[in-house]
Amino acid sequence: MSRFSSSRLAALTPYTPGEQPQDKKYVKLNTNEAFFRPCPAVFGAVGEIAERLRLYNDPEAKKLVKAIADNLGVREENVLATNGSDEALAFAFMAFCDEKRAARFPDVTYGFYPVFAAVFGVKAHIMPLDEQFNINIADYMNTGDTAVIANPNAQTGIALSLEDMERIIKSNPNNVVIVDEAYVDFGAESCLPLIKKYDNLLIVRTMSKSGALAGARIGYCVGNKELIADIKTIKYSFNPYNVGTMAQAAGEAAARDKAYYAEKTGEVIKNRSALCRGLDALGMEYLPSKSNFVLAKKAGMSGEELYLKLKDKGVLVRHFGGRIADYIRITVGSGEEIGTLLACLKEIL
Amino acid sequence: MSRFSSSRLAALTPYTPGEQPQDKKYVKLNTNEAFFRPCPAVFGAVGEIAERLRLYNDPEAKKLVKAIADNLGVREENVLATNGSDEALAFAFMAFCDEKRAARFPDVTYGFYPVFAAVFGVKAHIMPLDEQFNINIADYMNTGDTAVIANPNAQTGIALSLEDMERIIKSNPNNVVIVDEAYVDFGAESCLPLIKKYDNLLIVRTMSKSGALAGARIGYCVGNKELIADIKTIKYSFNPYNVGTMAQAAGEAAARDKAYYAEKTGEVIKNRSALCRGLDALGMEYLPSKSNFVLAKKAGMSGEELYLKLKDKGVLVRHFGGRIADYIRITVGSGEEIGTLLACLKEIL
Repeated sequence: MSRFSSSRLAALTPYTPGEQPQDKKYVKLNTNEAFFRPCPAVFGAVGEIAERLRLYNDPEAKKLVKAIADNLGVREENVLATNGSDEALAFAFMAFCDEKRAARFPDVTYGFYPVFAAVFGVKAHIMPLDEQFNINIADYMNTGDTAVIANPNAQTGIALSLEDMERIIKSNPNNVVIVDEAYVDFGAESCLPLIKKYDNLLIVRTMSKSGALAGARIGYCVGNKELIADIKTIKYSFNPYNVGTMAQAAGEAAARDKAYYAEKTGEVIKNRSALCRGLDALGMEYLPSKSNFVLAKKAGMSGEELYLKLKDKGVLVRHFGGRIADYIRITVGSGEEIGTLLACLKEIL
Repeated sequence: MSRFSSSRLAALTPYTPGEQPQDKKYVKLNTNEAFFRPCPAVFGAVGEIAERLRLYNDPEAKKLVKAIADNLGVREENVLATNGSDEALAFAFMAFCDEKRAARFPDVTYGFYPVFAAVFGVKAHIMPLDEQFNINIADYMNTGDTAVIANPNAQTGIALSLEDMERIIKSNPNNVVIVDEAYVDFGAESCLPLIKKYDNLLIVRTMSKSGALAGARIGYCVGNKELIADIKTIKYSFNPYNVGTMAQAAGEAAARDKAYYAEKTGEVIKNRSALCRGLDALGMEYLPSKSNFVLAKKAGMSGEELYLKLKDKGVLVRHFGGRIADYIRITVGSGEEIGTLLACLKEIL
């Protein structure tokens, strides 16, 4: 820390992104990237773009927003595009939390939520998951806080039903409920049908996982027109040109090809089943995931040990501390990658 | 504003980006974009990239940072890449301003500075330029504030000498001086030689103007290692993957081709002289610009009127309110674009 740092900065512990090692070629199952390529149109879209780079990108990202709105069956006024969903979440914290309105989220979830709370000087009310790592609905009912719920939840992969989500949203008419649907396309129920009914629901999504566009940085918010207008105010006060021309083109092409992605997310779900069967056969325990990752453990071996032994064999998974220190988080890779992982686990155990 | 907005949001008046109209084809001289294409390598770099988009971008943007550092003759630890220089400025406000440390900048400058101050709850000490629109050096000497100086200054195009900049930096040993060098490549003196000497100097730059990459969103900070580490802490607390794979590749290619850009910025300087000669011939007044734009006026006609009449003829320039309401800001376009502009002005006046 330099001697000039602000009080804001002095209090920060930044988020740690997943390992992106360059030392050798790994079977990379640590950051929930897609094993499949983006849809074919993305290739065409990106290739033709250098000519347009000298000009500013459309700050409203109109074509991208239209493509996303069409894809989801909502109106353009219900969508705002961001530089990855991290930026969408940051904007939402800025827009809907303050000294009077705390953020409320689980103890085991996306590790960035407490960081956002810290960077924007917002109190965090952290609610422990139950023994089985489920969200306790009651913790989020009738609160005065801005709730942030990843559904499916990050790290656990466990999803709440649409019915439970609606109970939470309905019980908080005066607070925004931010639903982070980064992983929703892999089998969970989206809250999208509720945005017309509840003006306090903000959905945050990303094309990094199910869109196979992690490197393009495309996130977005979906919600009631007024909520989106609020996020827009933050965006235009922070970084109006936040989504570059290349990302806009790639994202638009991807949002237009529903069939391709339906097939690919289906493949992820199929591979997830195969992975779970393999873990069963090895006597490993895991949480019931609706995501493109599975949180798994082996009794008698720490998550760190499993992680290191797999890394040694060229397979990269992720492990965390705290309540899930016994576990490793395995991204659902291709059939071949899962085969390699399971073979390595067999050797290790 | 929704009924959920934070106290932070309620107080905001966002920045207004320049017009990007889609209604017809304009001679577009309103947002200081380059009239020339990015260097040839950018085309190759961008074309090959779709295959890598499913994977996360390098959060450290190592290759881009190395290319920028090599280009500037500094070390990688002195550079941090951002999603446009707006994000670099936002991070700098977050890192080096707080309730005790106000931001200090001119009344006529980049319109985003007061917005950043508002969004981060920082007091703004706004120093009027003198009658000739020059920065009064004394306003920035020995202050307790974080100074933000665009050099050349935005909107006026007027540059301070390296000697004057050093006086300011030297007189503020306990505060950061942020020098926004968005337009420095068009003939002004950069503060780069001072970063080794002063640990309180943070330079912010962009590839949007002289790099002809406005749509790619590539900005960066240059400074002492500790200052850069501070900005890094903010970045990793806000958006770790802030510069996408495509932008990293485009920016790296551009930073590697110094010869191309030296030629092109030389052409801008030549065209700026031609533009000024044309304005002289029309009896217009203008400020002495070291940028890729010229702030010009015609006695007896408001800036708005000039702007509207030019727009009507298909030439887009920018006009602002306040002290420069009499002026229009003309981007230095290609020789042909300048010819069209001058011909239209002749008809109007």
